[in-house]
Amino acid sequence: MRVAGSNKADTWSRLKAAGIDLLFKHGYEAMNTRQLAEAAGLKPGSIYYYFKSKEEFLHRLLIDLLQEVVADLEGGLEDVDDVEQRLETYVRILVRWHVDRREETFIASIEIRSLSGQRHERYMLLRRRFDTLLAEILQQGIDEERFVVPNEPVLRNAILSMITGICGWYDPSGPLGLSSISDEFVRLTRNMVGLPSR
Amino acid sequence: MRVAGSNKADTWSRLKAAGIDLLFKHGYEAMNTRQLAEAAGLKPGSIYYYFKSKEEFLHRLLIDLLQEVVADLEGGLEDVDDVEQRLETYVRILVRWHVDRREETFIASIEIRSLSGQRHERYMLLRRRFDTLLAEILQQGIDEERFVVPNEPVLRNAILSMITGICGWYDPSGPLGLSSISDEFVRLTRNMVGLPSR
Repeated sequence: MRVAGSNKADTWSRLKAAGIDLLFKHGYEAMNTRQLAEAAGLKPGSIYYYFKSKEEFLHRLLIDLLQEVVADLEGGLEDVDDVEQRLETYVRILVRWHVDRREETFIASIEIRSLSGQRHERYMLLRRRFDTLLAEILQQGIDEERFVVPNEPVLRNAILSMITGICGWYDPSGPLGLSSISDEFVRLTRNMVGLPSR
Repeated sequence: MRVAGSNKADTWSRLKAAGIDLLFKHGYEAMNTRQLAEAAGLKPGSIYYYFKSKEEFLHRLLIDLLQEVVADLEGGLEDVDDVEQRLETYVRILVRWHVDRREETFIASIEIRSLSGQRHERYMLLRRRFDTLLAEILQQGIDEERFVVPNEPVLRNAILSMITGICGWYDPSGPLGLSSISDEFVRLTRNMVGLPSR
């Protein structure tokens, strides 16, 4: 049954929302495309119009998310030249993603290994841009002699882990809100690169 | 067929090693107890002597690991009074676990949600001790006015995420070894609590 006014983009959004919910609660291996169709209000057969397999669905979901994050970071950094402000912008945007889109970022953090071959490679290529953006900020800080960074790879991975880890402990019904988490992460990252707290 | 000299503890070790390998490569949902028996060199039926279900196996594996980590942290901290040294000890022990036992710590970080009901509760109770050890160190540093900690829960979770995240990026065949990773994490954690780098 086709809902009036629905179109391919609407249906994809519905599938995405249903998929995020199922993946977050049960994980990729436990999810099947029949449940997904049902949760999105579609007939089992009709989802193959949108994707050919469960893995293709996961891949599209994760690539969509990563593209949004990368675009958001690149957009946010575009007009910012000062390296301290660039670091702060990067941290604030990434923290916001992991607080506001906790379910999707959690899925991304654990289901990447469910992608195989070319899909995994394509994801990792895009993931590297996200990583490179931070590497470039750290390098700028080192070049301008404003950051103290004895071990850039460890520092970069530590910053990324502590931010991407938010989706593992953040409790939307708890006392900590986005702004206090975000402020504290900016402070911590500044300390980690040897800048004074403000 | 019973191998000469084998006993229940040996077999459990073999099952554990086989399980860690399967869980690391394929994940909990994709693993079945038949594969596990085969990889450990046992008949499918005989594993039920060791555990009643796949979930019971995962639970024992994760509880064993967490108990070892907690015992190691408690043992390491036992004779250390100075709060800076306590923080350093905690960080070094936890970093070592995530470098040396990367596969198991990775499994623990993503398969906790596969445990249900009482098993999940029991795990989380033990997990809290691990968390509490760090909370107590931070509190001691605050009480002695040696640490600057405006937001303890965020700081504590950030430290834990950055260390537990190591199993996600550490490459045993890469250039970074345990001691350089460990030194850098001590330095970063010191910075995060407002201590000078040494």
